[in-house]
Amino acid sequence: MRIIGVDPGYGILGYGILEKNKNRISHVTHGVITTEKDVPMYKRLGYIYDRFVELLEEYSPDACAIESLFFYKNVKTAIHVGEARGVILLASSQRNIPLYEFTPYQVKNNVTGYGRADKKQVQKMVKMLLNLNDIPKPDDAADALAVAWCLAVEIRA
Amino acid sequence: MRIIGVDPGYGILGYGILEKNKNRISHVTHGVITTEKDVPMYKRLGYIYDRFVELLEEYSPDACAIESLFFYKNVKTAIHVGEARGVILLASSQRNIPLYEFTPYQVKNNVTGYGRADKKQVQKMVKMLLNLNDIPKPDDAADALAVAWCLAVEIRA
Repeated sequence: MRIIGVDPGYGILGYGILEKNKNRISHVTHGVITTEKDVPMYKRLGYIYDRFVELLEEYSPDACAIESLFFYKNVKTAIHVGEARGVILLASSQRNIPLYEFTPYQVKNNVTGYGRADKKQVQKMVKMLLNLNDIPKPDDAADALAVAWCLAVEIRA
Repeated sequence: MRIIGVDPGYGILGYGILEKNKNRISHVTHGVITTEKDVPMYKRLGYIYDRFVELLEEYSPDACAIESLFFYKNVKTAIHVGEARGVILLASSQRNIPLYEFTPYQVKNNVTGYGRADKKQVQKMVKMLLNLNDIPKPDDAADALAVAWCLAVEIRA
């Protein structure tokens, strides 16, 4: 059972892929999809979609986990993050990959045992739980691994 | 020159198609794409995308106009409208259909000559400008025709 986790964004979108075999969860890969500020949003979304589809084709995940963030400093940012989420959800839908959403509280709670843990604590736990030598970089990729972990512990492999 | 206007939404998404020949703007069609509340969002987005692509294939618009709404009662709604916008922007991007955004103020100003006009005034003007027998229904379709009109008057046919 392979899981792709996504930390949605339009300038930088984090992804992290985990493999669950029986009760063992192991790290496959992680990274980010980035887009340029000066490019019109509809082209940025086209690029995010194409890159994400490439990931789905390369790693064939069985499920997708995405963070459901409902707190933003401003509505304009929320709309644009929503647009990026839209193309990710669409790509999963088109391949019949079931999609699971987790709130930041659920992610923190699942990874650290404490729903109000800070970003740094979550990242340290991701490193530890996945037996990595370093904290995954950038933050968006670490966050994506955290949400993938969140689904991995809940789902039956 | 054919223009598709979109009033973005996830429960109901309005569209309106206009044809511009030299300086004459005429009505082609209008309608809505609706999705069911009980269906998971990623499936609703898949449906919106498929229906919108069908419209693009059936009517072959040369340009797409969409309302850029940055005021929402709550961030959760804004995210979901953003998701619907995301799949519309993606579909346009994939077909190289240039996309133009207009604020509600621009739409009202272009259609009624007054940027603070109310919804009803905009709808009456849409009926008048397009020589329709009735105000287009539902409101989302009328709003989509208004944003299409907005681009039609600005673009060179």
